[in-house]
Amino acid sequence: MQTTAAVRGLSCTACGESAELSAHRCPDCGGVLVVDFDADRVDSAADAHPFPPGATVSIDEGATPLVAVSELADELGVESIAIKDEGRNPTGSLADRKFALAVAAAVQGGADRVGTPSTGNGAQSAAAYAARAGIDSKGVVPTRCPFLNKAMVNVHGGDMYVVEGRYEDAVDAFGEGDEPLTPVAPGHPFRIAGGTALALELLADREGAPDAVVHPTGHGETAVGLQRGFALAVDAGLTDAVPRIYAAQPDACAPIAAAVTDGAAEPVPVEHPDTIVGPLEVPDPVTGAAAIDAIDASGGDGVAVEDKSILQAAVDGCEMGPEIGATGGTAVAGARALADRGAFDAADEVVLVNPVAGSKEADLLRSHLMSQGM
Amino acid sequence: MQTTAAVRGLSCTACGESAELSAHRCPDCGGVLVVDFDADRVDSAADAHPFPPGATVSIDEGATPLVAVSELADELGVESIAIKDEGRNPTGSLADRKFALAVAAAVQGGADRVGTPSTGNGAQSAAAYAARAGIDSKGVVPTRCPFLNKAMVNVHGGDMYVVEGRYEDAVDAFGEGDEPLTPVAPGHPFRIAGGTALALELLADREGAPDAVVHPTGHGETAVGLQRGFALAVDAGLTDAVPRIYAAQPDACAPIAAAVTDGAAEPVPVEHPDTIVGPLEVPDPVTGAAAIDAIDASGGDGVAVEDKSILQAAVDGCEMGPEIGATGGTAVAGARALADRGAFDAADEVVLVNPVAGSKEADLLRSHLMSQGM
Repeated sequence: MQTTAAVRGLSCTACGESAELSAHRCPDCGGVLVVDFDADRVDSAADAHPFPPGATVSIDEGATPLVAVSELADELGVESIAIKDEGRNPTGSLADRKFALAVAAAVQGGADRVGTPSTGNGAQSAAAYAARAGIDSKGVVPTRCPFLNKAMVNVHGGDMYVVEGRYEDAVDAFGEGDEPLTPVAPGHPFRIAGGTALALELLADREGAPDAVVHPTGHGETAVGLQRGFALAVDAGLTDAVPRIYAAQPDACAPIAAAVTDGAAEPVPVEHPDTIVGPLEVPDPVTGAAAIDAIDASGGDGVAVEDKSILQAAVDGCEMGPEIGATGGTAVAGARALADRGAFDAADEVVLVNPVAGSKEADLLRSHLMSQGM
Repeated sequence: MQTTAAVRGLSCTACGESAELSAHRCPDCGGVLVVDFDADRVDSAADAHPFPPGATVSIDEGATPLVAVSELADELGVESIAIKDEGRNPTGSLADRKFALAVAAAVQGGADRVGTPSTGNGAQSAAAYAARAGIDSKGVVPTRCPFLNKAMVNVHGGDMYVVEGRYEDAVDAFGEGDEPLTPVAPGHPFRIAGGTALALELLADREGAPDAVVHPTGHGETAVGLQRGFALAVDAGLTDAVPRIYAAQPDACAPIAAAVTDGAAEPVPVEHPDTIVGPLEVPDPVTGAAAIDAIDASGGDGVAVEDKSILQAAVDGCEMGPEIGATGGTAVAGARALADRGAFDAADEVVLVNPVAGSKEADLLRSHLMSQGM
């Protein structure tokens, strides 16, 4: 695999062993693998991109704006709040950072077909990047996956399988498939590297690290990638400290947030997940233990919030700053809950991540207004 | 009104008279007004922003990517094609460039409520920018306006009036309203200035002008703004020539494209417009004559394409490059028709504008696949 000189290889988040660049899981222990960068070769955000020009698959993802929301900073009593609007990626979600890299890695490995189970946005993004690379794709989604995601998978020419049930049923069905394809499934090391790129970009946006980052967490990949990116930047001398990373999840499906708060090392799978925030309904995240480690290492925490607070926070957010949906509203609601419990200082500079464009979740927000009599 | 030193004032596109910065139409002849910039004070794209820091209303619009689509360049036999993805604005459409400026101008004039008739995306954007500025807004849309736009107007706290019928009925209803508000309606000079900013940004993206720009045209404001922006850049010594601007419209509602092709100075209103491309169903555009002048001055042309070709072009576009919807598909279909009639040279570098995020029009594209048996 052709990588930049900054890439040293893969290493396991569980046992520390190194692995071949083409591996998806640790050959020793089955743990989650991450891309190791050489801090001596990282001087800027661009250096955290693992592939050289000519070995990338890109639709110009990333370079998203960091939008200051002073009204929310005043409300929460912190120095500043800014929303990193990942909805402004090519298919309207942070997933694009992950699939740009995972599909590029697959193509370099000779793949002519990639696939993933997904709550929705990942399948849309995988189909878009596979199409851009000129290869086939397969998305396996649960029935509750939004029409928009299903439609756009088809529009990009991807194969889509809708599985009766919820996300775990899609994961099971994907695992049972025996057709030849290269998985770009949750836990893929180059998906996680998308979060690393996000961290480095955030540092460049602000010319330094924030004090805290609140991230709506589903699979946990981005939490892992963010922490590793910030730690890499510290090693590279680009910033002083890793910000506290807070995993915000809907309380009806908060396996990572609950484990961090409880001091547990592993997420407890949620038996009957039931949140309106579909992209975050991941009851047994494969990257869970790695995410818990990453959040702990950052000095952050988990925060679980009710669906009703999430939806109200999304609508409030849309009146103060960039468009966000229910997924992004989870960051706003999480930040409110964190402020209530004294997690922030008055001097804190806080970044919230909006993982999905507000327009993609207009129906959820409109339903909430309806329930408020509007 | 507080503007940058580069702003000289407003002038009329019809009679050439100058006007106060707060004017919406020419006080002499009722013509469409545009912002005049002093070329001697324009050294970069940033200088085409009319308002200084502190007098802006921004959700970090613009700075959208220009995505190369080499597969389409090969198909059309031109040197290069790139899509300027305006879907990656805060509310997912090019309208954000317009309303950032028009709402800022209104706020400076003391407005506490703005309003516009709209096919949909404009109302969504107006509501978002008004909310960001802390003022009220009113959007008047026809029944056929997509649910997504209506929902997001409400989510941003805007008042929405749905008028039975089509866009012209919304225009009539808006004109009959007698409540106090500041219009940010089609033809507003600072809306047009959004297109000027787009032209300067395109030049910065590519480090020079393309040979041709194909723009899906509804109101015609962006065509006027683009031509003025490129001409300003020529005067400022930033580039050598204004690219040929092509207005692409659905053939069922092509008042501007038809007039340009026929050599007419004014658009002929379309009596029974009926296109699936809702954002472009503007049968009697107030900026029509100014757009026709601008396109003629650029050496460009009009191109009218069937809905079926537009939808197929949108789906094809999604398999080659960034996500586009039916509105952006109009540029791809238009470019194909222009190539067929020999409008491009093999050496031409062509830019297509995608005005609306593909995800916002997923339903139209999915329906098209359905009609193809997929």
